[in-house]
Amino acid sequence: MQWYFVAALLTILTSSQGILTTLSQSNGHYTYDYGTVPFLAEFFKLVVSSLLLWRERRVLPSTRMTTEWKSVRLFVIPSVIYLFHNNVQFATLTYVDASTYQIMGNLKIVTTGILFRIFLRRKLSNLRWMAIVLLAIGTTTSQIKGCGEASCDSLFSAPIQGYMLGILSACLSALAGVYTEFLMKKNNDSLYWQNVQLYTFGVIFNMARLLVDDFRSGFERGPWWSRIFNGYSLTTWMVVLNLGSTGLLVSWLMKYADNIVKVYSTSMAMLLTTVISVYLFSFKPTLQLFLGIIVCMMSLHMYFAPPNMLVDMPSPTKAAPENLKEISVERKTDS
Amino acid sequence: MQWYFVAALLTILTSSQGILTTLSQSNGHYTYDYGTVPFLAEFFKLVVSSLLLWRERRVLPSTRMTTEWKSVRLFVIPSVIYLFHNNVQFATLTYVDASTYQIMGNLKIVTTGILFRIFLRRKLSNLRWMAIVLLAIGTTTSQIKGCGEASCDSLFSAPIQGYMLGILSACLSALAGVYTEFLMKKNNDSLYWQNVQLYTFGVIFNMARLLVDDFRSGFERGPWWSRIFNGYSLTTWMVVLNLGSTGLLVSWLMKYADNIVKVYSTSMAMLLTTVISVYLFSFKPTLQLFLGIIVCMMSLHMYFAPPNMLVDMPSPTKAAPENLKEISVERKTDS
Repeated sequence: MQWYFVAALLTILTSSQGILTTLSQSNGHYTYDYGTVPFLAEFFKLVVSSLLLWRERRVLPSTRMTTEWKSVRLFVIPSVIYLFHNNVQFATLTYVDASTYQIMGNLKIVTTGILFRIFLRRKLSNLRWMAIVLLAIGTTTSQIKGCGEASCDSLFSAPIQGYMLGILSACLSALAGVYTEFLMKKNNDSLYWQNVQLYTFGVIFNMARLLVDDFRSGFERGPWWSRIFNGYSLTTWMVVLNLGSTGLLVSWLMKYADNIVKVYSTSMAMLLTTVISVYLFSFKPTLQLFLGIIVCMMSLHMYFAPPNMLVDMPSPTKAAPENLKEISVERKTDS
Repeated sequence: MQWYFVAALLTILTSSQGILTTLSQSNGHYTYDYGTVPFLAEFFKLVVSSLLLWRERRVLPSTRMTTEWKSVRLFVIPSVIYLFHNNVQFATLTYVDASTYQIMGNLKIVTTGILFRIFLRRKLSNLRWMAIVLLAIGTTTSQIKGCGEASCDSLFSAPIQGYMLGILSACLSALAGVYTEFLMKKNNDSLYWQNVQLYTFGVIFNMARLLVDDFRSGFERGPWWSRIFNGYSLTTWMVVLNLGSTGLLVSWLMKYADNIVKVYSTSMAMLLTTVISVYLFSFKPTLQLFLGIIVCMMSLHMYFAPPNMLVDMPSPTKAAPENLKEISVERKTDS
């Protein structure tokens, strides 16, 4: 399977995610406990990966699986980072409003590029760095509030703690991605085995989170497992399946492509969601949405097009001095 | 003199132009007839160029000057294009408001690129095309109205004629620039002699325009020459000198650099003016101004940085097949 095919599928599914989530609400409110969705999605991913691993091992008994605890325990780290991230996210939202938070979220495109460079030691050309920054600018531009909309000027008026936490949140989000890529690529283990480890910890951490919420509310609505499917509609189940599927695609990309591909997929999905919302929820399209989309498309082209398509390459005659040197060396040996 | 030095000077002077013009008003109104400013600027440029031509001919009697009418008459064309452009501009403003007109004005960056390619047959790499489009997007982004500002939604609600005329205006503006570059580069005539021809027609057309305005108003305020300096302050004179100087710099760039350099200079000047206005006239900086500036800076870098700075050039080993061929040829001759 080609990575761009998987990336395109991820874009479509991620984009549907926002739309399905909106459709699953009634009158702008969730009829179900939203906390149960990521838990069920993790569970779905664990089941799918386990089945695929079982099939793979039957067909190919030599399937690589590192089962030492020294290796397995590393797979808990993404879950730990997400736990931190969720709390930082929560803290950030006490300082800044939702739209400022959304704008700051684009920072993770840039932090992913930086951590990708530092931790995975992947060199990026000057042009690719510009493409990454342009992607962040394009998505931000598309999210600028149109004139006349509410919540003006909130962007520059939040306390400094809000911005610091926003930056920390962007770093944690990037770190989780980069660390997962490291895990998936560090050896030739079966992707499904790596997934099983990752999602087992995912299920455990999500269960723990639901339980902590129950403790916080003093179990007044009973334990989470007794009301897990309360208010679930067909659309809610589609939200769960969709979230699970995007997770599986992201894992695939982490092993066979990289974080930057994932970042492009999800950014394009964000734009696609906005464009679809224009039709579906009669959103008013703005000039900034249009400009943002063009900037993101250019960024995509700048990052992925082969360099010789972008710039006029120096002609092969540039190699001439080396040839000359060789000739002069030959002459010396002749004399 | 290096072209980037002239371009930087043009940026600074063009940027001062907007600020001086604002400072020359009192309570937001002109105390003088603004139509006299371009006339005096043309006159200033004609005098300066004549003096420089006179000096050049004294020092260097071989100064090249084509004086055939067949060549001289070509210098009237830019003035004719500007005459058309002014009328189209006027017609556009009856359909769209000033801020929509300003936004559409950025189209001339792209039309300049297109006419530069078509008429001057200058090839631009894929990357440079993207840089030009990004410059237009960056300047447009910086001009998006902040939320809460007046005149919302005017951008998408003008009649179609307004947009057609806006596009025509952008094409005429680009055509004038591209044609002037063609004139300046078509032979090795002295720059000052070319300027003298250009500005002589400029003075004539500006005089005619003032006269037409007088006829339209039925000479109720007397002929323009009798009230030309009415209401002029020191700042007004500075506006004139500034406009004249920028014109001379543009002529220089048309001969020794090109239209794209000019377009970058004036776009950067627009951003510089906005930034200075934040301090000088306590404009409120917006997120879009910040994003627009970054996009323009990247565009500048993309257009002017050497390609090997932007992308990882293929390593010299690419030349290997040729070396191999040479070796095999040598072997053949050996055997």
